[in-house]
Amino acid sequence: MERAFSIGLDYGTNSVRAVVVDCADGRMVGTHVFAYPSGDQGILLDAKQPHLARQNPADYIAGLRASVRGALTAAEAEPGFAREHVIGIGVDTTGSTPLPIDAHAQPLALDPRFSNNLAAQAWLWKDHTSAREAARITEIAREHNPDLLAPIGGTYSSEWWWSKIWHCLNVAPEVFDAAASWVELADFVPAVLAGASSPREIIRCICAAGHKAMYSAAWGGLPPKAFLTRLDPRLAALRDRLYDEAWPPGRPAGHLAEHWAAELGLRAGIPIAMGGFDAHYGAVGSGVTTGTLVKIIGTSTCDCAVAPTADRIADIPGICGIVDGSIMPGYFGIEAGQSAVGDLLKWWVEVVCGGGDALHASLSTEASRLAPGESGLVALDWNNGNRTILVDTRLTGLLLGQTLHTTRAEIYRALIEATAYGARAIIDRMREYGVVIDRVVCCGGIAEKNDLFMQIYADVLGQPMLIAGSLQTPALGSAVAAAVTAGSAAGGYDDWAEAQRRMTSIKSKRFEPRPDAHAVYDQLFGIYRELHDAFGGVAAERPDLASVMKRLLEIKERAVEVTA
Amino acid sequence: MERAFSIGLDYGTNSVRAVVVDCADGRMVGTHVFAYPSGDQGILLDAKQPHLARQNPADYIAGLRASVRGALTAAEAEPGFAREHVIGIGVDTTGSTPLPIDAHAQPLALDPRFSNNLAAQAWLWKDHTSAREAARITEIAREHNPDLLAPIGGTYSSEWWWSKIWHCLNVAPEVFDAAASWVELADFVPAVLAGASSPREIIRCICAAGHKAMYSAAWGGLPPKAFLTRLDPRLAALRDRLYDEAWPPGRPAGHLAEHWAAELGLRAGIPIAMGGFDAHYGAVGSGVTTGTLVKIIGTSTCDCAVAPTADRIADIPGICGIVDGSIMPGYFGIEAGQSAVGDLLKWWVEVVCGGGDALHASLSTEASRLAPGESGLVALDWNNGNRTILVDTRLTGLLLGQTLHTTRAEIYRALIEATAYGARAIIDRMREYGVVIDRVVCCGGIAEKNDLFMQIYADVLGQPMLIAGSLQTPALGSAVAAAVTAGSAAGGYDDWAEAQRRMTSIKSKRFEPRPDAHAVYDQLFGIYRELHDAFGGVAAERPDLASVMKRLLEIKERAVEVTA
Repeated sequence: MERAFSIGLDYGTNSVRAVVVDCADGRMVGTHVFAYPSGDQGILLDAKQPHLARQNPADYIAGLRASVRGALTAAEAEPGFAREHVIGIGVDTTGSTPLPIDAHAQPLALDPRFSNNLAAQAWLWKDHTSAREAARITEIAREHNPDLLAPIGGTYSSEWWWSKIWHCLNVAPEVFDAAASWVELADFVPAVLAGASSPREIIRCICAAGHKAMYSAAWGGLPPKAFLTRLDPRLAALRDRLYDEAWPPGRPAGHLAEHWAAELGLRAGIPIAMGGFDAHYGAVGSGVTTGTLVKIIGTSTCDCAVAPTADRIADIPGICGIVDGSIMPGYFGIEAGQSAVGDLLKWWVEVVCGGGDALHASLSTEASRLAPGESGLVALDWNNGNRTILVDTRLTGLLLGQTLHTTRAEIYRALIEATAYGARAIIDRMREYGVVIDRVVCCGGIAEKNDLFMQIYADVLGQPMLIAGSLQTPALGSAVAAAVTAGSAAGGYDDWAEAQRRMTSIKSKRFEPRPDAHAVYDQLFGIYRELHDAFGGVAAERPDLASVMKRLLEIKERAVEVTA
Repeated sequence: MERAFSIGLDYGTNSVRAVVVDCADGRMVGTHVFAYPSGDQGILLDAKQPHLARQNPADYIAGLRASVRGALTAAEAEPGFAREHVIGIGVDTTGSTPLPIDAHAQPLALDPRFSNNLAAQAWLWKDHTSAREAARITEIAREHNPDLLAPIGGTYSSEWWWSKIWHCLNVAPEVFDAAASWVELADFVPAVLAGASSPREIIRCICAAGHKAMYSAAWGGLPPKAFLTRLDPRLAALRDRLYDEAWPPGRPAGHLAEHWAAELGLRAGIPIAMGGFDAHYGAVGSGVTTGTLVKIIGTSTCDCAVAPTADRIADIPGICGIVDGSIMPGYFGIEAGQSAVGDLLKWWVEVVCGGGDALHASLSTEASRLAPGESGLVALDWNNGNRTILVDTRLTGLLLGQTLHTTRAEIYRALIEATAYGARAIIDRMREYGVVIDRVVCCGGIAEKNDLFMQIYADVLGQPMLIAGSLQTPALGSAVAAAVTAGSAAGGYDDWAEAQRRMTSIKSKRFEPRPDAHAVYDQLFGIYRELHDAFGGVAAERPDLASVMKRLLEIKERAVEVTA
């Protein structure tokens, strides 16, 4: 049988990566990374507005061309590879990253009149200029349409679609007025590849629509005009120029346009998979299925799980999103996250202790010699707020239990433990609402490199920690989506589970929970939850804070006895 | 008129200092320091018992001889000084530092049978081997004689007299049985100078007796035999071999013995002032009087105030000691303290940040550029427990409000602020119970050197911070006591206030509170108190912890606005 390959495109925060993947076994036979040339590492900043983070849409198009070309050239070293064997292209991106487009589906930023206007660029996921709009959307929705917030955790974020577009309307009405429509980056790239020439030709993914734009079949798509009118009548008018329907992965977002095919040496008309967010396709590339939680561990963390649509999972308070079909068709996609994980350790080692990689390594070594509980410390992992399950950006860090002998390595370990407790709080909440989780698969640099981190997670969660076989799970997941979208007749797959079985893998190295350590962490997690609930404002009863320090000392004393 | 000089002897933890002071103006005309030669910097340790800290009584006697000789030799450079102009000697020491003595009032440790027995040495104030005995004393007193604990803050400490003697009985009965009596170092040194030859000749100071040995005229001296029998009948039997009465400063503890006079070239028979603790005589040397709080700021902090006996100050919960005549006759001596102040900053800079003096200086400079509230942080100063007003060694540190941008200088400042809040909690408690405090005088290295620290204290307390004129206030205070004990006829004083006016001073450099800063610190202190009460177990009502982080962010945002 003829060989079949698919391309996965992963649009990250600072660069875009293209991979060429063998559909038979998921092996990457060609890869290329293109760093966005504009701004500071690809991000447009404004010294006067620290929360602003934009991107130049021209970088996306230049990156598309360069990364796919590069990956294809690299793949040509693979025996048996030929460009005509490429059966489809998948795309994942950051999000919510909306950009305004004109009547020809071209980014407004490419129009010379707007090229220097920051509001006309892409509004990167981590742009937080729209905090006021987000708070107002939450307030109005809670009063008039609480159903709109239920699937997205109960609070609308400044990182999301409507907050950003509304903020654009407020601060740059000339851009808002000039925009024929707006598009998520996850839909924009497939549309470019498919040669869409008007906003209405753009096929929108349910991943972005459902998680970020309050889209649901339950109320007929985007939020009702009456609701949008309460925000601003001009947003209600915009609704008509957006979209009526959004789609789960599986169906094509289009087919490769002639001019791209010619330029890249690919076959015209091969399917472009529905776009999706990097975390979601990362979950696909990590083998997500019923019972598996995928943790994408980086500066922050994204947790993805799926539950069969037939299970009718309820809204889960504090879980950012539960959207039918947002990860794979036939499943609810469930997304959660922690706002600072790698960033928390980076803060401690680099900002506070003033060290670099060498200090990371030495603290990790020193911390690995400590028994659970031996430091006497407990921390809250909120230095960047709490995304799940409290959904509150105005929470901050806490460290408790210090003595005059507390070391930087003990604090380093306490911060890792705090993120593990945060992870456990998320899993507990999902289980409480009926999501089955019996396997945890991790991906990202920390999962690959930091054994101490992984062992602490196994011990805190009481669950083996597995590691995804690929280092590039989002790009791999996009390639899986492309293979499924192309179908078995083209050399791909008709079934997601089958495609995942063949194309994704788990490393043989895994971290098993140690029962003794888990028992100690059960106690420490109890203390974490008391502090979490008290300072997070969700304590059901009066917490017994008077005994917290003493209980930590008792746990410490037992830990020291055991190790002595 | 003939010149008059007095000698002050200050027995510290690692060394003894003697000063020769001009009674006319308090000027030090000769000084000498003798480092104790035994053990580790003068402290006998035991690798198997980390809480053990003892001293060799031979060091005290060698130090007496060497330091006084050295100071007198140095004084001879002063025009008009002659050894026969010395009118008295005062002594202050650490405490509670009890030692067992034989029937001739000689330290048991000087007996060759016991010279290597750690239990026969002096039990240094910071020896914590008697924790179990202290807890039991507190328990029994609370049940049967709560009155005994009222003047000493409600909890008996492992650092104190009865805990240590009882522990000796339990672990080294041979020492307990061999001891004819026990004596506080503060009483031992005057007795040595006076040539006491039996325990009954030793004049005991009310400072040690009242603050550490549960002595009070209210129940006829030391605790009743019935109470001591409940601890151990042998302690009750010991009571008869201790003392019936203890005395405030003013009367002599004896007169200089012939052999000392001959050896030192002083006049025989000059008065030896009543001994006292270093902090108490430090307060005298700092000019303590009604309305003045003296803060001796070092690794930890001791706060001393006085209130006229006529004012009938009530017992103040959480204040370690309120003892009639313990600082000056006619006044209640009131003592409080913070367990870690200099040590808390040392921990941060040296243990955590891994720096030294240069980092102390640079963090201080950086922290001094921050406005109150700008860090968004609040800390509890409990890394070494809380001595006043919670009296709980099993409390630990807390830091709250961290973001991913929090710097080490911000944390350094937050820790200074935490100790200032702790200081304010002490002052508030004293005032609440009727102690007038309208002047705060500081002494110790931090007060002399760290302007940031002093300004923060002025701003937090809303009160000018004054600095004692002498660097050696305990030795000066002892010399003041000697001058008053000698009396005006000998060239000294008959009146403490007059002696203090002449012999002590305040530096012209002072730190004024800034109203804007004080207003911000009022808010931050409110948050500190909420955390203090919640984690300290004294919250009257359910604390609003859910808003703590948000209130800190609001204060931070206003601080940034003001400085911007």
